[in-house]
Amino acid sequence: MNDTFLKACRGESVPYTPVWLMRQAGRYLRQYQKIRKKVDFLTLCKTPELAAEVTIQPIEALGVDAAILFSDILIPVEAMGMALRFYEKRGPVFKNPVRRRQDVERLLIPEPEEALSFVMDTIRLLRRELKVPLIGFSGAPFTLATYMIEGGTSKNFLLTKRMIFESPEVYRSLMEKITETVTRYLKAQISAGAQAVQLFDTWAGVLSPHDYREYALPYVKSVIGAIKSIASGVPVIYFVGQCAGLLEEIRGCGADVIGVDWRINLDDAIKRLGRRFAVQGNLDPCALFLPPAEIEGRIRDILRRASSSRGHIFNLGHGVLPETPVENVVAMVEMVHRLSSRT
Amino acid sequence: MNDTFLKACRGESVPYTPVWLMRQAGRYLRQYQKIRKKVDFLTLCKTPELAAEVTIQPIEALGVDAAILFSDILIPVEAMGMALRFYEKRGPVFKNPVRRRQDVERLLIPEPEEALSFVMDTIRLLRRELKVPLIGFSGAPFTLATYMIEGGTSKNFLLTKRMIFESPEVYRSLMEKITETVTRYLKAQISAGAQAVQLFDTWAGVLSPHDYREYALPYVKSVIGAIKSIASGVPVIYFVGQCAGLLEEIRGCGADVIGVDWRINLDDAIKRLGRRFAVQGNLDPCALFLPPAEIEGRIRDILRRASSSRGHIFNLGHGVLPETPVENVVAMVEMVHRLSSRT
Repeated sequence: MNDTFLKACRGESVPYTPVWLMRQAGRYLRQYQKIRKKVDFLTLCKTPELAAEVTIQPIEALGVDAAILFSDILIPVEAMGMALRFYEKRGPVFKNPVRRRQDVERLLIPEPEEALSFVMDTIRLLRRELKVPLIGFSGAPFTLATYMIEGGTSKNFLLTKRMIFESPEVYRSLMEKITETVTRYLKAQISAGAQAVQLFDTWAGVLSPHDYREYALPYVKSVIGAIKSIASGVPVIYFVGQCAGLLEEIRGCGADVIGVDWRINLDDAIKRLGRRFAVQGNLDPCALFLPPAEIEGRIRDILRRASSSRGHIFNLGHGVLPETPVENVVAMVEMVHRLSSRT
Repeated sequence: MNDTFLKACRGESVPYTPVWLMRQAGRYLRQYQKIRKKVDFLTLCKTPELAAEVTIQPIEALGVDAAILFSDILIPVEAMGMALRFYEKRGPVFKNPVRRRQDVERLLIPEPEEALSFVMDTIRLLRRELKVPLIGFSGAPFTLATYMIEGGTSKNFLLTKRMIFESPEVYRSLMEKITETVTRYLKAQISAGAQAVQLFDTWAGVLSPHDYREYALPYVKSVIGAIKSIASGVPVIYFVGQCAGLLEEIRGCGADVIGVDWRINLDDAIKRLGRRFAVQGNLDPCALFLPPAEIEGRIRDILRRASSSRGHIFNLGHGVLPETPVENVVAMVEMVHRLSSRT
């Protein structure tokens, strides 16, 4: 069992810097495309044998130090009672978004081992197969709320912010239901065998520091606090997109590891977060289109900037892009291991 | 003549904090919509009498302390020889984007008083009418390049970054042509009567600090240096969207004022920029949907955080949204003046 990833999350010493990639299972891998030709995206997420298979693909193809459950952040939202569809170009769409009090009242808080049993089955299958730790995950409450309110992805998140600013009590009741759903969902993943969990707050960076502190952070703290009360040894990673203006606020989140996007230097992020956290990141996913010699330069730079941290897990600053040349990803993983080797 | 804005740009003492809003002339104003019913957007930009009229509308309706030329950042790009169309939903589209060396070679460097004479005529008209300073503007080179390469707006700017990473010499030659165009364009605006200029680097925040320093900042410095060499007394404002991770790099830009978006606290931005600059910003445009009493609280907070700066011009952190209630914008301007009054 390769436990380098878990050790780095805990700030323990490691023989080299562990690495995994957000969206490491995905369209840039031929093996993945082969399976997607047979089933649509949601069916893939809901079929444990197939979800487990694509989760394992990058472990074998890339040699990364952790696996992340193959799923989508909107899976538990669908289980809250919202009809979900994925379109090739537009991405995820909720046809009946949450806009008023009645929309919130209609939402369910799903029992994970019932409504989301396929996820727990996938986790149980994976734990029998994997030689690296398995990361479970969920969208963070604010990020999930944006999809539920906007009905999909958004440019300026105006509908979400209008609900916060014009109907704060509706927003609060929505966030309470999401928070309870996410908490139960992650607890169930841990019970099923997830050895670490990541909360994705992809869109929290569209909020001002004030609004982040008031309208996003408290719900993250609640989720993480609940997890820590039942499984204090399971590392929690909290990833925030566009985090550069929010780092001082993020310090209060309660996670073990902070996932940092590529729009800030990692040593600046470490200095502003303080030494309580390990960090994860933060290569620009587009940098994987550079010639390998220049990718190496970028990796050296990130490893150097990470040297002052409590622990470092190498990752991209966002998910792998579908167009990414797979040979550069393979080269990247090898370089991280080689350049960080302490033996 | 109200010169509070120009004084604040220069760090001189002012009786109150001046305020203007990015996109203060626009669809949220009934007067503007009335004119847009008669002409399309590009015709409006290219008809000096009409462009001057909509430039003046918010000065009368809101009581702001500066006017900004009504135009679009892509106007000079069209004059470089790229066919431009605006669509209601999709926004601006270049049907033949720049992808290869030949595309760059075909681009012109327009003579502003010829190809863009309507802009200079608008400025000359405005200077006869206005009782507040007139701000000219241009897109910054990197932001213009993203539209030219992507063919419009983008989600992850992959085509732009691929050109930077895979064909850096093509990118450099494109940036040189854009930089020369922007430099001539802003010099001509100043000669025609613009009393300050703003460079909009709306998308520079999608770059890592390293890539910003290598591939965006040098061209900004070149433009600002050229302006300062002919008109050292004309304040230059440099606005960067998602600037929070880039502030240490931005210090090298040579501008007088840094425009800050809403994703960072203004006092943090001031501390990291140093005292050389005045700052402009930084209310979230969506905060204008709050009840007026809460807008007042946000304004107080920003004014307090700005108190350590060399100079402060109140503004939003991005453009006014079309859905914004105009009465809240009017209230905001009044509040900024009242709450910052030093007499």
